[in-house]
Amino acid sequence: MNKTIAAFGEVMMRLEVPNYELLSQANQLHYSFSGTGVNIASSLAKFGYRGLVVTSLPDNSLGDAAIAFLNKLAIDTRYVSQHGNYIGKYFLEQGFGPRASKVTYSNRIESSFHTASADHYNFEEIAQNCDLLHFCGISLAMNDNVRQHVKELASIMKLQGKMVLFDCNFRPNLWGKDGNKKAKKHYEEMLKLADIAIMNEKDAMLTLGLTTKETDRRKQLEDLIPKIAKHYQISVIAGTNREILANNQHAIEGYIYKNGRMYFSDSRAFPVLDRIGAGDAYTAGIIHGEFQAYPPEKALSFAITSSVLAHTIKGDTPLATEKDILRLIEQGSTDIER
Amino acid sequence: MNKTIAAFGEVMMRLEVPNYELLSQANQLHYSFSGTGVNIASSLAKFGYRGLVVTSLPDNSLGDAAIAFLNKLAIDTRYVSQHGNYIGKYFLEQGFGPRASKVTYSNRIESSFHTASADHYNFEEIAQNCDLLHFCGISLAMNDNVRQHVKELASIMKLQGKMVLFDCNFRPNLWGKDGNKKAKKHYEEMLKLADIAIMNEKDAMLTLGLTTKETDRRKQLEDLIPKIAKHYQISVIAGTNREILANNQHAIEGYIYKNGRMYFSDSRAFPVLDRIGAGDAYTAGIIHGEFQAYPPEKALSFAITSSVLAHTIKGDTPLATEKDILRLIEQGSTDIER
Amino acid sequence: MNKTIAAFGEVMMRLEVPNYELLSQANQLHYSFSGTGVNIASSLAKFGYRGLVVTSLPDNSLGDAAIAFLNKLAIDTRYVSQHGNYIGKYFLEQGFGPRASKVTYSNRIESSFHTASADHYNFEEIAQNCDLLHFCGISLAMNDNVRQHVKELASIMKLQGKMVLFDCNFRPNLWGKDGNKKAKKHYEEMLKLADIAIMNEKDAMLTLGLTTKETDRRKQLEDLIPKIAKHYQISVIAGTNREILANNQHAIEGYIYKNGRMYFSDSRAFPVLDRIGAGDAYTAGIIHGEFQAYPPEKALSFAITSSVLAHTIKGDTPLATEKDILRLIEQGSTDIER
Amino acid sequence: MNKTIAAFGEVMMRLEVPNYELLSQANQLHYSFSGTGVNIASSLAKFGYRGLVVTSLPDNSLGDAAIAFLNKLAIDTRYVSQHGNYIGKYFLEQGFGPRASKVTYSNRIESSFHTASADHYNFEEIAQNCDLLHFCGISLAMNDNVRQHVKELASIMKLQGKMVLFDCNFRPNLWGKDGNKKAKKHYEEMLKLADIAIMNEKDAMLTLGLTTKETDRRKQLEDLIPKIAKHYQISVIAGTNREILANNQHAIEGYIYKNGRMYFSDSRAFPVLDRIGAGDAYTAGIIHGEFQAYPPEKALSFAITSSVLAHTIKGDTPLATEKDILRLIEQGSTDIER
Amino acid sequence: MNKTIAAFGEVMMRLEVPNYELLSQANQLHYSFSGTGVNIASSLAKFGYRGLVVTSLPDNSLGDAAIAFLNKLAIDTRYVSQHGNYIGKYFLEQGFGPRASKVTYSNRIESSFHTASADHYNFEEIAQNCDLLHFCGISLAMNDNVRQHVKELASIMKLQGKMVLFDCNFRPNLWGKDGNKKAKKHYEEMLKLADIAIMNEKDAMLTLGLTTKETDRRKQLEDLIPKIAKHYQISVIAGTNREILANNQHAIEGYIYKNGRMYFSDSRAFPVLDRIGAGDAYTAGIIHGEFQAYPPEKALSFAITSSVLAHTIKGDTPLATEKDILRLIEQGSTDIER
Amino acid sequence: MNKTIAAFGEVMMRLEVPNYELLSQANQLHYSFSGTGVNIASSLAKFGYRGLVVTSLPDNSLGDAAIAFLNKLAIDTRYVSQHGNYIGKYFLEQGFGPRASKVTYSNRIESSFHTASADHYNFEEIAQNCDLLHFCGISLAMNDNVRQHVKELASIMKLQGKMVLFDCNFRPNLWGKDGNKKAKKHYEEMLKLADIAIMNEKDAMLTLGLTTKETDRRKQLEDLIPKIAKHYQISVIAGTNREILANNQHAIEGYIYKNGRMYFSDSRAFPVLDRIGAGDAYTAGIIHGEFQAYPPEKALSFAITSSVLAHTIKGDTPLATEKDILRLIEQGSTDIER
Repeated sequence: MNKTIAAFGEVMMRLEVPNYELLSQANQLHYSFSGTGVNIASSLAKFGYRGLVVTSLPDNSLGDAAIAFLNKLAIDTRYVSQHGNYIGKYFLEQGFGPRASKVTYSNRIESSFHTASADHYNFEEIAQNCDLLHFCGISLAMNDNVRQHVKELASIMKLQGKMVLFDCNFRPNLWGKDGNKKAKKHYEEMLKLADIAIMNEKDAMLTLGLTTKETDRRKQLEDLIPKIAKHYQISVIAGTNREILANNQHAIEGYIYKNGRMYFSDSRAFPVLDRIGAGDAYTAGIIHGEFQAYPPEKALSFAITSSVLAHTIKGDTPLATEKDILRLIEQGSTDIER
Repeated sequence: MNKTIAAFGEVMMRLEVPNYELLSQANQLHYSFSGTGVNIASSLAKFGYRGLVVTSLPDNSLGDAAIAFLNKLAIDTRYVSQHGNYIGKYFLEQGFGPRASKVTYSNRIESSFHTASADHYNFEEIAQNCDLLHFCGISLAMNDNVRQHVKELASIMKLQGKMVLFDCNFRPNLWGKDGNKKAKKHYEEMLKLADIAIMNEKDAMLTLGLTTKETDRRKQLEDLIPKIAKHYQISVIAGTNREILANNQHAIEGYIYKNGRMYFSDSRAFPVLDRIGAGDAYTAGIIHGEFQAYPPEKALSFAITSSVLAHTIKGDTPLATEKDILRLIEQGSTDIER
Repeated sequence: MNKTIAAFGEVMMRLEVPNYELLSQANQLHYSFSGTGVNIASSLAKFGYRGLVVTSLPDNSLGDAAIAFLNKLAIDTRYVSQHGNYIGKYFLEQGFGPRASKVTYSNRIESSFHTASADHYNFEEIAQNCDLLHFCGISLAMNDNVRQHVKELASIMKLQGKMVLFDCNFRPNLWGKDGNKKAKKHYEEMLKLADIAIMNEKDAMLTLGLTTKETDRRKQLEDLIPKIAKHYQISVIAGTNREILANNQHAIEGYIYKNGRMYFSDSRAFPVLDRIGAGDAYTAGIIHGEFQAYPPEKALSFAITSSVLAHTIKGDTPLATEKDILRLIEQGSTDIER
Repeated sequence: MNKTIAAFGEVMMRLEVPNYELLSQANQLHYSFSGTGVNIASSLAKFGYRGLVVTSLPDNSLGDAAIAFLNKLAIDTRYVSQHGNYIGKYFLEQGFGPRASKVTYSNRIESSFHTASADHYNFEEIAQNCDLLHFCGISLAMNDNVRQHVKELASIMKLQGKMVLFDCNFRPNLWGKDGNKKAKKHYEEMLKLADIAIMNEKDAMLTLGLTTKETDRRKQLEDLIPKIAKHYQISVIAGTNREILANNQHAIEGYIYKNGRMYFSDSRAFPVLDRIGAGDAYTAGIIHGEFQAYPPEKALSFAITSSVLAHTIKGDTPLATEKDILRLIEQGSTDIER
Repeated sequence: MNKTIAAFGEVMMRLEVPNYELLSQANQLHYSFSGTGVNIASSLAKFGYRGLVVTSLPDNSLGDAAIAFLNKLAIDTRYVSQHGNYIGKYFLEQGFGPRASKVTYSNRIESSFHTASADHYNFEEIAQNCDLLHFCGISLAMNDNVRQHVKELASIMKLQGKMVLFDCNFRPNLWGKDGNKKAKKHYEEMLKLADIAIMNEKDAMLTLGLTTKETDRRKQLEDLIPKIAKHYQISVIAGTNREILANNQHAIEGYIYKNGRMYFSDSRAFPVLDRIGAGDAYTAGIIHGEFQAYPPEKALSFAITSSVLAHTIKGDTPLATEKDILRLIEQGSTDIER
Repeated sequence: MNKTIAAFGEVMMRLEVPNYELLSQANQLHYSFSGTGVNIASSLAKFGYRGLVVTSLPDNSLGDAAIAFLNKLAIDTRYVSQHGNYIGKYFLEQGFGPRASKVTYSNRIESSFHTASADHYNFEEIAQNCDLLHFCGISLAMNDNVRQHVKELASIMKLQGKMVLFDCNFRPNLWGKDGNKKAKKHYEEMLKLADIAIMNEKDAMLTLGLTTKETDRRKQLEDLIPKIAKHYQISVIAGTNREILANNQHAIEGYIYKNGRMYFSDSRAFPVLDRIGAGDAYTAGIIHGEFQAYPPEKALSFAITSSVLAHTIKGDTPLATEKDILRLIEQGSTDIER
């Protein structure tokens, strides 16, 4: 179990108002550092892999604190480039029941990550030293500069015969007006390079422009995902469907396309402590399933359980170990582990 | 949307034990300043009105802190009179599931509010500068002094053609033995002055002494409320019915008498973060419905949603904006608002 | 109501990570001092008895802090012997939903309690001064030294005509391999001395080695418990059955053998704030039922309600008063107690 | 060392704003329970005596929390009477450097202590069970009711041949206009009953009305204190002189009249963490000196060191043990005690 | 005392690491909102004036929280324009003794304040409604846009016969290379419009380019300040000189040019709790001296004491009242104010 | 600057009572992980070296948390062996002024570190991969097992031509009665292997048994240290002398023996935030001086400044960078670094 997985993406400072208060009520914030890449690398480090993050952070106290935080998560930070002055930030007012959580972003476009030049990274060396690289649609949304980094690094990975994972993760408010249209070209380029994709029926229809006669969500997936897999020659496509229940509970079900067919998990309901980042725990589970050559049903079960546990951990970043996940699958919920 | 609403009432210091601990376990308290008047004025300020509180606070660090807190809520404090030494306080031990919350009051009768003389207020000026004045049954309960202020200010409002709202809010332990009997006369006087009343079937039967043959709660309301509205010439009477569910959930339904008939909302279940003050959020919603000339169904929906959201906010005081409430009505619960 | 109840057992330091975080995430701990004996003595003190703990604590700042904490709970600490350097500790990472709570113990076998000699206690005096002594299977698990103290003190109690309660409480990981087998002899000795026992069908089958043809849990209890009661001449045997529900809820039902027959309560579901120690609240309720000569149904209702409320209190130690419990039984859940 | 010392006086709730913030800045308070009696009884318990407090506390959550706190300090609470609804409170905004600490009192006159009737205490039994009773001028200041309790209990102590200590502690703002004049009569009565008095030259001149030709403070003490001792037949009179230095430091010197002459200590400078209650630590030291029959120089050294250490402890209440004090006297300041 | 003072300037979010920890150690931040304008307006509101801030804040949760915070300080926020998405922020790692405090800025140039257009303000109305407007050199440093707002508003003030104060406050790192040279022209324009200036000898020499033969700092001030006052026709010029002592103490002395001559205060040493913003407290004291027509010596004493007290208050913003300052001047440091 | 320094030693959990409270007052602890080895490795990582710790930690949540903490400090944890169940702990009650800090240890002898077998380490590999290994007298004090590890690893270092540093650090209470005598043999063995030693005149006289006619501390050092250096062929011997001043200040001076002679620094006074671990910051400074080939005066200045700054950082572990130290040496104390 010594594969190396890297994730390219922005590291942000998360500033959370504690105790379900609003920013206008409180005077304290709990801070941590996260991002899709951090979540993926940390989760896979917990599963026993070497997890790296490829990113840029400012050369000041905030950048130092971010790197210390990544180190604490056992992420390998050797490919973190420290330059510039700014880090992207988001403020989180946790919701409760019918009141939604509210995220307020600060400047991201001026961050070290979004202003980095290609010189700040050694893509060749990075590609040589890792087995799979994780990219996310969010990194394509902000500017051409980062888009170039994404595509260049993904291409080098392919040239070196390494694996590429692309998580479609579409954020409408980052792309702005006609966002799907703007995104289409870039998404297509990435899907051509991808071995694994994380995607749902909306990505297929709204961004890629596919159509289907089906109206039921599951039927849409069953119709569209295999077509995409064939078209872009992607061996694994996976995703989840989330339902928001009353009383601080959510339910999710997962699906995976593999070996030419679709598999769906049951729907799982559970109480939510911290919802952000739980999708990345699913992706990490899918990656683990691939590296362990799990049969699709087991891969789904592992990935869903990984995601469920991520909802019960404070902060964005999944912290469950492989052992934690397998025990929950095998033994079900227990009371106290002594 | 530039109506001015004032609320007359005591401002209290709320001292809450955090983390569901008891006073005998903890050593820290979270404090804020609240009261029915504060809740009403703050909520209406959030809806875009000018919200004032008419009250008295001590001329010391505690009074200063209370005024700072009211300012923070965007309440206009120009009619807060600062004199005397004491502020009413209550200690709150938050309940959990089957364990009820426990409120322990400190001295209220000696507070600046309860010992203020009429000279501490300029009732004429206040009445001139506001469109609606909110009074609450709690202010009638403690002593003759404050009762006089209430009636005098309400009368001046009527003389000037302004609106009076009376919230019957009956607290048995403040009135003591034979409380309903003692209260009756004062409640009748206030209802004669009121344009809007907040009231339930118990107020009608126990305090006002009406009788009905109905035994079902809703039927009782349908029988009694219209009679009261006619008798006292009140154009709007509204209220809620609360049910305590297992697992930290409550359910409420609302009703409103308007244009000569009763309207009832559906029952809404939701998890509770902080229950105190959520009734005032309903009243604020009713006031907004009146000023916006909402049809009764929409007024009920707005008021109930205002109250539901108030249960999900820390502290007594509702903080949802008009936009927050309308979005929840229109879109239902969402996950994360980015 | 001036009976005196003592509990013999280890006092441990509980170090809890707040806010559902893991030890590897946080940097703060909330600490308290607890143990089965503390829980029993404190709960009975809340019911109006004199509650003592018989134990050993180190002669340093930690021992001083533990005694201060016990004093705060109104436990009589006159029979706490202070010597040696160490106190047993456990770290608690609170679970959430499907994620189980995790308890990590530090050294216990080297604690003042586990290394105390008989000279550190005056068993005769203790027995003279109390009406009932509570022992727990955990105290039998660690070493011969403490086992000796347990048996000696229990024997002296019997000689003086006082009551002995033995809570079977079997912790597999303390006894190690073939634990039930190792425990059997000691459990049998204690049951011979006991007037009241806390026990379930697993204790009967796995530790005492009884067999039954029944497969349903309740049927097993109905078969086995009366046999044990007769065999060991125990007048009261009680226990609970716990079910872990989704969404941070548990359900428990209780049973009691008394006057020659078994009684079962209904199952009660409730949300859980802090699960540890809630079993001791049940035991304390059973003791109260005995001293008050409650009929079995009432004793069960009191004990179950005592345990339910203990799940809603932070920390191991039950804090509900007799009045709190009776009010909940009589009035059901209420909203706010003012 | 098994003398029993009781202290009669009000127990107040102290509500402190943490981190040197003002009430108008913060939203959290740290609370504890204290008062001259608590400080004396706790300090003497730390010196190995049995320390009791004779007082009244409300019969609610606040009274329960106060008693739990006193228990935690190892104070014997058997003579605490629980009745009524209110506890006196004070809010503390800690000063820093040139900014003075600010204390804001809430209602005291309505507290359980100030409204207690003589029936709430069993003065005979209390007197029988203790060797010395400590009274404070603050208890004389508020109302006739408490003054009666003070004088009655002091008289019974004398009748039973027990010791009475009176701490003159004059608070001008409690006595109001012409306070010294009002106080004179009551102070004279108490001094006639006292074996030990805590007093300074201002008490002698302003309250008792003595005159001296001396202008230097120490000379005034040397002139007046012996006269008072003779006049009232008091065997020991002691006190301190405090100087406020820059940079959060204070300096104090102590004096004691004993065996017919005055002794003065050197002046000691030290940094201040929490100043309130440090005078009571001096008094406790003087009491200990008496019971140990220390020579006056040693008594002074012990009392001053007790007071210095009390300035370095959070909260009002002194927590240094006899061992702590003697070690500091003998070894001077050390770095880390391992 | 009903003058109205407005301050034009950026409102920033201050995010402070508590307990003297570094960003890489901690996980919590204490936040508040401040800036030169906030400090001036708040301090003058505490002195009894109407204090306004003229600024722009984002139209999101952070802007709402900032306005709530300003309201809490009793600042009139009617001229705060809410638009855009970003607020300038700074992270503060508090120093200790020889370790300097460290400030890390986030993006300021993209803030609502720095990107506001003139349309976002109604300069005419603002000028009509205030007696004095405070500007600061920091507002000139960042971009031409804000420079234009500053000059336009200052010019309109003069046209309307109102007072202008310009605080030279030169921040080298904001101006960059050759900063003094770049600043000169803008400073000269502002000084021509100013009635009161805050300035030191370095501003005179480095920015304005004056020369002097003196080498002693005080002599340089005595030589240069009167020349500047005459040249620019400024009636009052004031400033301070700070010295950093060992052991967390500072010393400051103040000076004022008025009625054609220079006055200097003594040097005052004091311990420092929070140094940022204490210079603005001096300026507020100077403004108060002007409006009260204090003689220069009294104005200096008031302003220095205002600044000393600001060093003892948590956060940037001075909170001392006129009464607090006068009491400290008259009575010196006291122990506890009850 | 890519030397690799490893430190062999125990990693302990530090549990600190916040806000200068005692364990019997508080209910919260701040925790971190530290030890001489951690301090050395972390400090050198801050100076730009690769810093490793060679130790054993338990294979549970506490061990995981300790490793996460070391990672956060940028310590390379590849030679941390995870096995066993226990970690050594110490509780810290911070002193204030004349009140000393108090450290209470929990079990250390049963920790994973003290019970590790040689198999848990790969000494050959470790020695191959580092340039200098740091050992501390504390590791020699507890049991023969660890003594063996120390000597074996030090011997292998020498065989491979790498550097060994031995810090004499003598803890009397760990060695017990006749501790110096017991320690002598082990200290002598280590000094024979050492290239650098940290030692003072007490180590020379009390442990090694040297004698001198000098009575002045500095003279004793000048007499004894060169003799020891020659006898054991140690090229560098260094140490400090600490003086405890009033008002939370300390003063230290440093000395170094190098190139055959002694050098002494001036004495530096400074306020203390957190004293523990500051000696290790001095040692780290000496190591840096060696690797940078600083002249002795510069090495002393760097090491003393490193130690002074470590007193101003919360926690045991020094966090100053080389840049921080050089700036303080060159510029002296500054106010705010922006």
